[in-house]
Amino acid sequence: MPAMFCERLDQACAAANSLVCVGLDPDLDQLPADLRQDPQPLFAFNRRIVDATLQSAAAYKPQIAFYSALGREDELMASIDYIRARAPAALVILDAKRNDIGNSAVAYAREAFERYGADAVTVNPYMGEDSVLPFLARPDRGAILLCRTSNPGARDFQDLLVEGEPLYKRVAERAAARWNGHRNLMLVVGATYPEEMAELRRAHPMLWFLVPGIGAQGGDLDSTLAAGLNSAGTGLLINSSRGIIYAGGGESGAIRQAAATLREAINRKRLKSSSAGYC
Amino acid sequence: MPAMFCERLDQACAAANSLVCVGLDPDLDQLPADLRQDPQPLFAFNRRIVDATLQSAAAYKPQIAFYSALGREDELMASIDYIRARAPAALVILDAKRNDIGNSAVAYAREAFERYGADAVTVNPYMGEDSVLPFLARPDRGAILLCRTSNPGARDFQDLLVEGEPLYKRVAERAAARWNGHRNLMLVVGATYPEEMAELRRAHPMLWFLVPGIGAQGGDLDSTLAAGLNSAGTGLLINSSRGIIYAGGGESGAIRQAAATLREAINRKRLKSSSAGYC
Repeated sequence: MPAMFCERLDQACAAANSLVCVGLDPDLDQLPADLRQDPQPLFAFNRRIVDATLQSAAAYKPQIAFYSALGREDELMASIDYIRARAPAALVILDAKRNDIGNSAVAYAREAFERYGADAVTVNPYMGEDSVLPFLARPDRGAILLCRTSNPGARDFQDLLVEGEPLYKRVAERAAARWNGHRNLMLVVGATYPEEMAELRRAHPMLWFLVPGIGAQGGDLDSTLAAGLNSAGTGLLINSSRGIIYAGGGESGAIRQAAATLREAINRKRLKSSSAGYC
Repeated sequence: MPAMFCERLDQACAAANSLVCVGLDPDLDQLPADLRQDPQPLFAFNRRIVDATLQSAAAYKPQIAFYSALGREDELMASIDYIRARAPAALVILDAKRNDIGNSAVAYAREAFERYGADAVTVNPYMGEDSVLPFLARPDRGAILLCRTSNPGARDFQDLLVEGEPLYKRVAERAAARWNGHRNLMLVVGATYPEEMAELRRAHPMLWFLVPGIGAQGGDLDSTLAAGLNSAGTGLLINSSRGIIYAGGGESGAIRQAAATLREAINRKRLKSSSAGYC
């Protein structure tokens, strides 16, 4: 395993020749009918998804609330073990949007990186520097900071103008200038606002963005890629959750096709599919 | 049990004649020596704390990371059950600082209110309205929104000026004006900046604040009370974690004394110790 998160990221994208991140958000009410009686239905569904997408995915992103709401942390751990066995190059991003200070932040980082063994965790920046740095302390693990999210409520605070520029740009500037010494920081930048993404790309040519909002949330893939790809044809992880995992009602062939189609649609727009990237 | 969170809050404070919230942040490395061999050391420590503080505490606030980092959710659940049995009027606040949108936010609310049965959960506002409302949907449960936190990094974004006033005031205004229809919303306002607390109190006479930062973080109790108590001598839950639970190295009598002393110090400054409050 590479020593640096940024190397892991580049190699994950190179190994699958892909910028696709598959969101593992298994809602118990929406599981395929044939899995609902399984004693570990979330794990069973995730096995199906991983098997169907491992040729297409650079990363998997389980959203922890779907597991913890049900007390099914064991199924999350089993799913991550399964990814490691079946797709060893793929990144595991724990989508937990954690944030706190001091010992509490250290404990959250331990949860993500030691308990679950994730490569990266999503983090909320509202509490500032001392709430972010504990997640960036390990060069071999990354933190993905919420910057401009894809939801309507992102306007409420993230877009407010501070000395003429929106708050989310301040977040990106502070993060890039002061917190990325290990090159293990990424930003969450939603697909639903390509102009904002283009501005962020201009300001931060080499930062990697995790991009939610394609598909169900209405983000357009082509304008996202035009706005967000860096000069090396990389710099983005494009997440799709519902658009992949519930394809065809959660049927294996449809899941495989949905992931492959997204990977191809992205690769057609990349200038080159090299591994040139963050490191 | 009262139907409304705001009634629960008033009754919890009235029952103990107290505004004290005890933080249950059991760090495995700092446990009292006699508990380290216990098979459930976090639960054992919490039992000791609850037994020693139930005369003094209006609320208990477990920080979930201390449990989830170690895979000890069962000890958190047992601790909450123990609070319910021993101190049935006390509020249980799950300090989780959750935030997300859509189904993920609904799952986080389910985690806090159904899995753990908490009365309230702390929530980060950065993602805006659609990330906050799922935590406020139940009138019998509360959400406590990060507003102005007690840590140094709070300056990085919360204090940035938006049209001449700091972002955290915008958060408070939006929360009070639009999200508090069930009167089940509180704000986190740190004790380390009493001037900011005084401004927020002037702007929001009846909102309740959860106040971290007394003691270990350097917040001064008297200036906090002068700044934050409302005209009924209430409106604050003053949290103390390390200052209570590690008193005397975590010895029962010292814990009892620390909680009682804080309660008395607060009550001396209250204009009246009535239950007049939120409802």
